[in-house]
Amino acid sequence: MSFDDWLAEQAAKRRDAGLERSLVSRAPDDDLVDLAGNDYLGLSRDSRVVAAASGAAHRWGAGAGASRLVTGTLGVHDQLEAALAVWVGTEAALVHSTGYHANLSAVTALADADTLIVSDAHVHASLVDACRLARGRVQVVPHLGVAEVEEALSERTESRALVITESIFSVLGDAAPLTELADVCARHGAVLVVDEAHGLGVAGDGGRGLVNATGLAGRPDVVVTLTLSKALGAQGGAVLASQAVVDHLVNRARPFIYDTGLAPAAAGAAHAALDVITLEPALVQRVNTVATALADTVGVDRPAGAVLSVPMPGPTEAVAAQAACAAEGIRVGCFRPPSVPDGISRLRLTASAGISDLDLARACDVLKTVLP
Amino acid sequence: MSFDDWLAEQAAKRRDAGLERSLVSRAPDDDLVDLAGNDYLGLSRDSRVVAAASGAAHRWGAGAGASRLVTGTLGVHDQLEAALAVWVGTEAALVHSTGYHANLSAVTALADADTLIVSDAHVHASLVDACRLARGRVQVVPHLGVAEVEEALSERTESRALVITESIFSVLGDAAPLTELADVCARHGAVLVVDEAHGLGVAGDGGRGLVNATGLAGRPDVVVTLTLSKALGAQGGAVLASQAVVDHLVNRARPFIYDTGLAPAAAGAAHAALDVITLEPALVQRVNTVATALADTVGVDRPAGAVLSVPMPGPTEAVAAQAACAAEGIRVGCFRPPSVPDGISRLRLTASAGISDLDLARACDVLKTVLP
Ligand SMILES: Cc1ncc(COP(=O)(O)O)c(C=O)c1O
Ligand SMILES: Cc1ncc(COP(=O)(O)O)c(C=O)c1O
Repeated sequence: MSFDDWLAEQAAKRRDAGLERSLVSRAPDDDLVDLAGNDYLGLSRDSRVVAAASGAAHRWGAGAGASRLVTGTLGVHDQLEAALAVWVGTEAALVHSTGYHANLSAVTALADADTLIVSDAHVHASLVDACRLARGRVQVVPHLGVAEVEEALSERTESRALVITESIFSVLGDAAPLTELADVCARHGAVLVVDEAHGLGVAGDGGRGLVNATGLAGRPDVVVTLTLSKALGAQGGAVLASQAVVDHLVNRARPFIYDTGLAPAAAGAAHAALDVITLEPALVQRVNTVATALADTVGVDRPAGAVLSVPMPGPTEAVAAQAACAAEGIRVGCFRPPSVPDGISRLRLTASAGISDLDLARACDVLKTVLP
Repeated sequence: MSFDDWLAEQAAKRRDAGLERSLVSRAPDDDLVDLAGNDYLGLSRDSRVVAAASGAAHRWGAGAGASRLVTGTLGVHDQLEAALAVWVGTEAALVHSTGYHANLSAVTALADADTLIVSDAHVHASLVDACRLARGRVQVVPHLGVAEVEEALSERTESRALVITESIFSVLGDAAPLTELADVCARHGAVLVVDEAHGLGVAGDGGRGLVNATGLAGRPDVVVTLTLSKALGAQGGAVLASQAVVDHLVNRARPFIYDTGLAPAAAGAAHAALDVITLEPALVQRVNTVATALADTVGVDRPAGAVLSVPMPGPTEAVAAQAACAAEGIRVGCFRPPSVPDGISRLRLTASAGISDLDLARACDVLKTVLP
């Protein structure tokens, strides 16, 4: 079959399954209420954050110019790393160019061929890819299953083990049993890797995330990954851990070593966002208020963070509800098989501190009429 | 073995092998001559490029706020994609958040389980990881070996095939036989994937790269990947190909779909850099002049692009030469086993149009005294 034919066949399959995706451009100042993005604190458009992006580009240039290990480590990276580590409570931090890179780095560099990787069934694509890239054997356990993690760890033949979870899961918005997982890991000599992509800025004391809230930050056997592209409103990712882990990643993590350093504008913006959150903890309360209002409106449990998952009768109903919301100026996310971990179609709503009371009221009105 | 002990053992091994790497911060305005970075046209600090980074952050925010498929596609992405496609001569383009992501996307989405992936032995870590992530069987062939590619393709049992190369290789700086590879691919129904990371902006007519120069741009069975972080001075990557390929990636490439869109500042900066190159083709000539001067000084062949590879007697000599250059204010790259594809330690020098005549003369003087 020719390449053209193969592409056409793939496209036809998507069309027939009703699963075609396409890119739709967002205007810089439409008046849609965004309940689909991950700019949880509304900081990507905060004037201080934008000014910091601009300032960093002027001071350091539009790009880092090289890998962090060659000549691409800049003061703006060092300062952001120090601030992130202090904020979350770890010894050290290593900034990457995306959250995806941070996950690929942490898992591939910490797992060798003699490592069992135990992964929650609902982890993000970047962690799934990280497991696939890593050298160790991978065992997927049921979502939130602590007993299953323990069983996998105790039955392993490998001398080392990593346990992989998110603090707040990206699709369902539920929280991982971090304390229990850390206990199990400690008992079985395993390292716990926690992706705080959806915890940071919205959960825990002052938005420091759930690893901090559970007292696990700073434990040498707990490794945090995070993204700068959600609550921090910028781009990039980081691994927060002991200095020994960071040194190891600098030497061994290919997605860190062989990648250009994060653009100064993004690093500067993320740092400024961190300063804003520290200065205005009310922002974190605000995102929780918005999340609670949305949860009460749609009739689901109040979420651990900013992500709400609204189960729908089926994919058709989910798509129709999303379209009905859009027609009323409310943007919501829609997840259908095969993009859902459990086969259940759903709307995904995200709360943002950047939504005004007026827009929130409007969104709640629309959701009430649209949802079953 | 505890995690701490494992980390310590790994660190000791690195130390014993003399292979410890660490991050050294670069000051915003040191007066070192940088022959190690990849800012080939000096555009990362160009005032127009920096102003565009700043302008895009002000207009669109510090981050894209979501995946490109959710609400993270912005006009600044659309415009950059259109400009890149026109410039290189392909039907379409898809911007990613790093060049690493672009490679992971292209290879994993275009290879299915029934695809043989034939890869040049010297390709970049991101392509190696892409091959590892992809579902098809991978066959590595000797560097620049067209006959070996043909043999692999003709002996394959898989119905489909991808051939993977760089246009100008990142470590040795040599050029791939693109015309021959494309012929072989066409004869055997294979797709040619060419990473233009080190070709774009420095090789081909007006810096359009070697795929353009060889008349292969726009062929439906040729897929170009590139980075915005080298000659374009920013951050990010792109896949340039037919619209059908781009549509396929939008639907199937996990490192594109499950990743936050490229930060507006980086997209805006890369677009401005493209405009500068179009307006001032002399920049491309300048990088070639600098590369030629460096090559003549150190006694190696004039390179296809901006990367010069200087073989050294051994790793100790390479490290010593790098240190001697640094002591004189000249920053050069140093590659030793296991980071070299062929076991030969070498200095890696990169030319940049941003180097003044004075600095170039100074660099050449130092290189002459330092090199054997
Ligand atoms: C849980 C989780 N981890 C990692 C990522 C990747 O982060 P980034 O978009 O910065 O690459 C995302 C989302 O994009 C995510 O939801
Ligand atoms: C050949 C090649 N491809 C891809 C990349 C990755 O690009 P980026 O740094 O934008 O992730 C690099 C360098 O970093 C490279 O040298």
